[in-house]
Amino acid sequence: MTAAEPSLIISGRYLLPQARQTGVLENHGLAISGGVIADIASTETLRSRYPKARHVHTEDGLVMPGLVNSHTHAAMSLFRGLADDLPLENWLNNSILPAERQLTAEMVYWGTLLSCAEMIRSGTTAFCDMYLFAKEVARAAAASKMRAWVGEVFYDFPSPSYGPPEQGFVYLDEMFEKYREDRRLSVTINPHSVYLCSPGLLERLAEIARSRAAIVNTHLSETAGEVKTCLERYGLRPAAHLDCLGLLTPNTLAAHGVHINEEEIALLAERGVGISHCLQSNLKLASGIAPVPLLLEKEAKIGLGTDGSASNNNVDLFTEMKSVALVHKGVSGDPTAMPAETVLHLATMGGGAALGAAATIGSLEVGKKADCIVVDLAASHLTPLYNLPSQLVYAATGSDVRHSIIDGEIIMRDRKILAFDEQEVRAKAREYAGKFRAGM
Amino acid sequence: MTAAEPSLIISGRYLLPQARQTGVLENHGLAISGGVIADIASTETLRSRYPKARHVHTEDGLVMPGLVNSHTHAAMSLFRGLADDLPLENWLNNSILPAERQLTAEMVYWGTLLSCAEMIRSGTTAFCDMYLFAKEVARAAAASKMRAWVGEVFYDFPSPSYGPPEQGFVYLDEMFEKYREDRRLSVTINPHSVYLCSPGLLERLAEIARSRAAIVNTHLSETAGEVKTCLERYGLRPAAHLDCLGLLTPNTLAAHGVHINEEEIALLAERGVGISHCLQSNLKLASGIAPVPLLLEKEAKIGLGTDGSASNNNVDLFTEMKSVALVHKGVSGDPTAMPAETVLHLATMGGGAALGAAATIGSLEVGKKADCIVVDLAASHLTPLYNLPSQLVYAATGSDVRHSIIDGEIIMRDRKILAFDEQEVRAKAREYAGKFRAGM
Repeated sequence: MTAAEPSLIISGRYLLPQARQTGVLENHGLAISGGVIADIASTETLRSRYPKARHVHTEDGLVMPGLVNSHTHAAMSLFRGLADDLPLENWLNNSILPAERQLTAEMVYWGTLLSCAEMIRSGTTAFCDMYLFAKEVARAAAASKMRAWVGEVFYDFPSPSYGPPEQGFVYLDEMFEKYREDRRLSVTINPHSVYLCSPGLLERLAEIARSRAAIVNTHLSETAGEVKTCLERYGLRPAAHLDCLGLLTPNTLAAHGVHINEEEIALLAERGVGISHCLQSNLKLASGIAPVPLLLEKEAKIGLGTDGSASNNNVDLFTEMKSVALVHKGVSGDPTAMPAETVLHLATMGGGAALGAAATIGSLEVGKKADCIVVDLAASHLTPLYNLPSQLVYAATGSDVRHSIIDGEIIMRDRKILAFDEQEVRAKAREYAGKFRAGM
Repeated sequence: MTAAEPSLIISGRYLLPQARQTGVLENHGLAISGGVIADIASTETLRSRYPKARHVHTEDGLVMPGLVNSHTHAAMSLFRGLADDLPLENWLNNSILPAERQLTAEMVYWGTLLSCAEMIRSGTTAFCDMYLFAKEVARAAAASKMRAWVGEVFYDFPSPSYGPPEQGFVYLDEMFEKYREDRRLSVTINPHSVYLCSPGLLERLAEIARSRAAIVNTHLSETAGEVKTCLERYGLRPAAHLDCLGLLTPNTLAAHGVHINEEEIALLAERGVGISHCLQSNLKLASGIAPVPLLLEKEAKIGLGTDGSASNNNVDLFTEMKSVALVHKGVSGDPTAMPAETVLHLATMGGGAALGAAATIGSLEVGKKADCIVVDLAASHLTPLYNLPSQLVYAATGSDVRHSIIDGEIIMRDRKILAFDEQEVRAKAREYAGKFRAGM
C-alpha cells in the first residue's frame, strides 16, 4: 500500500486481475494512489474505505489489465494500406523504403501519436517501439500518456534520424538523460537485426545496454532469407550468433522468432530472452508462423506484437489475440492448442515479462502500476457470457474497450481520448499521406 | 429503373459499387425505389433529380454492398463461449449436443435474432442459415428484416424440430408455402451432410430442390474423418458421392470444402457448385484450411461464412475477411495470395453468386436489390486512406459500420438497430444461457 489516500476507484461487474479465468471476481474494483494499485476489493468495500476517491463504475464493465504491445513501429501508421499484397522485395524497396526516405521528425511524431490513439482505443496501455527519430517517438508517447519502451534503431549505415552511426550513440545518450526519471517511458537499445548490424556494432550496443540496464530490442529470424544470410556470413544461425556476442540475456526482447529450430527454442528459453510474437504481420508478409506452442513448452517469455501498420494494418491486439488462438490450432491440427487463457496471458503478463516488467505491469495486483482497461460486455456480440477469456479472445474487438487508465490516470473515458486531440492527429496523417502518395 | 419516384438517397464520400478498387466513385450515392437501386450518380445530381427523396448522407462515409454470410447457424449465438479449446469429439458430444437437446423453438427464435443483431452491426445484410426449428429461424430473419436463405436441417434420424424424417417434408412444404412470395426470405433444402444422410434421403431432397427451384445447402468435407467415412461406406469421396446422387448443381451451396483434392476442386468448379469458405471456424476446430486459391484458379463460386458462434465466436465478416487474406498468405508463403480486392469480392459478390443470387445482390448496380452499408472512414485506425479494399479488409472491423440498408429500408441508423429491440434479445439470450449452464 502507498501512503497517500487513493484518489480513484475503477470498478465494474467483473474484475479479471490476471489473464487466468480462475481469478474472476464479481463486483470488484481497484483503488489507485500515485499511479499504483493501492487496494483490490469489492466495489462496496472500496466505496466505504475511500469515500473521497473519484469513482468510475461501469455497470456491464470488465476491469482487466491493459494489453501490452511488445513490438511495433508506431509511426508506420502513416503507411497503412500504402502497399499491400505485394512480393516482399517489391513492398519494401518500391513502397516502404521510398516512403521512409521522405520521413521527417515531425511526421514520426504525428504518426506515432496516431498509433497511440488506435492502441488506446483498442485496449493497449503499454507498447515497445522501434523506429527512426526515436526522440519524436518518445515525445509522442509522452503526449499520449501511454507506457512505452522506445529506442532509436541502429544499423551499419547512416540514419535519416541521427546521421552517421557515431552520432547515434550521442542521440541515445541524450535520450537516456532526458527520460532517466520518467514514470512511463523507458529507453531501449535497438540494433535492427543481425543482417543490418555488424558484430562490432552489436557488441557495442550490448555494452551500452549493460551499463544502462536497458532492454535490447531487436528483430530475430523473421524470414528464412535472414537465417540463410547469417549462416553464410558467420557460420551460425541468428540466435547462436547473438549469443556469442553477448546479446541473449533476460534483458533482450527478440521480435518475430519465426524461423528458429529446436536448439534455438531451447537456447532462447534458457537465456530468458523475451520473444514478441507478431503473427498477423508474419502471415501478411508470408514470412511464416513462429513455433509459439513449442516456445511455451520450454517456458519462454512471450508477448504479442502487432508490428507496424504497414504490415498488419492496425494495432488492435484483440483481433491479434483471436488470430493467435485460431491459427496455431489450424496449422497444428490440435483444437486445444493456444487456449484463450494462454493467449490472453501472452497479451498481458507475457508482454510485461518479455519487457522485463513482470513486477510492475501485466496484471492487477496491489503495488503494481495502475494500467487497466474497462471492457463493455453489454454488446450483442458479447452476449451471452459463459467464459471471460473466451469472450475476450474469440468474440471481442478493440472497439469494445470503453475506458483506459494508465499510470493511475484516466486516458480514455467513454471512448473519448482525454490526453490529446485525436482530430488534429488524423488531420496531420491525412496531410502527410498526400505527400507520400505524390512521392511514389 | 423502376416506375416509382425514388424515396431514399444514400450517399457518402465514396461509393464502392463492386468490391474492385477500380470502381471507387467520389461523392456518389444511390437512389432507391421499391427496395431496388433506381439510380447511381453524384450526390449533387441525385439531390437535384429526386428532391422529394429522404437523403441520408455520411460525410466520411463509404457506401458499399452489404456483406453476405454464406454459412451460419445463427441461433448458436446462444452457445458462444460455452465450450472452447476442446478436442472436437468432447466439444460436440459433451457440450454442444447436450445443449442442443435442451433447445426449444422459442430459443431458436431469440438466438437467431441475436445473431441478426450482430450481423447487422457488422455489415452483413444477407445470410444463409442451416439449423433446427427453421420456421423460427425464418420468423426471426423476418423480424430482423435481413435478407435470408433459411432451411430446416435433415438427417436420417428424428429431429427435435419436426420429429420423424417424414414429418420433415411436411414441415418443409409449409415453409415453402409461407414464404412463396417473400421479398427477403428464400427457403432452402438442407441435408446435413453425406455422413448423416443416406443416399435415399439425399436423392429425395435433391428432387424437392429441383421441383421448388431451391438452393441445396449442405456441409461438405469439413473434416478428414468425414472423407474417410464416406470412402468406407460408398467407395467415393464426398463430392463424387454427391455428384452421383445428382446433388452437385449450380443450385448447391457446399459449406467448408476443406478436405477436397484436385479432382474434387475441378468437379465442384465445373458443376457450378457454390462453396462457403468458413476459415475462422475451420481453424478453431482445427479441421484444416480449404484450398481457396486453387478453387479460385478454377473459377469456382466462393463466398465467406462465419459458421455458428459456437465455433468462431462471432459473426463479424470484417474480421473474417482479414483472417482469410492473412492466413492463405501465411500458409502458402506467397504474400500476393488472396489480395484484399479478391477477399472483399468473396464477402460480397462471391457470396451472392454462391447463393445463386448474383443477379440481385453482392454489388450496387441499377436494378439490383438495395442492400448496402455505410462504413465510417473517419476513425484513427482507418486513417490515412490510400486504398479502400485494403482498408476494409486489413484495418476495419464490423464496428466501423454506421448504417445498414436492406431491401431499400434503413435497418440500422447511426449504429442503432431500428427493426427490433436489441435489449430484449440480449435479455432473452442471458436467460437461456442460465439454463444451458445449469444443464451441463
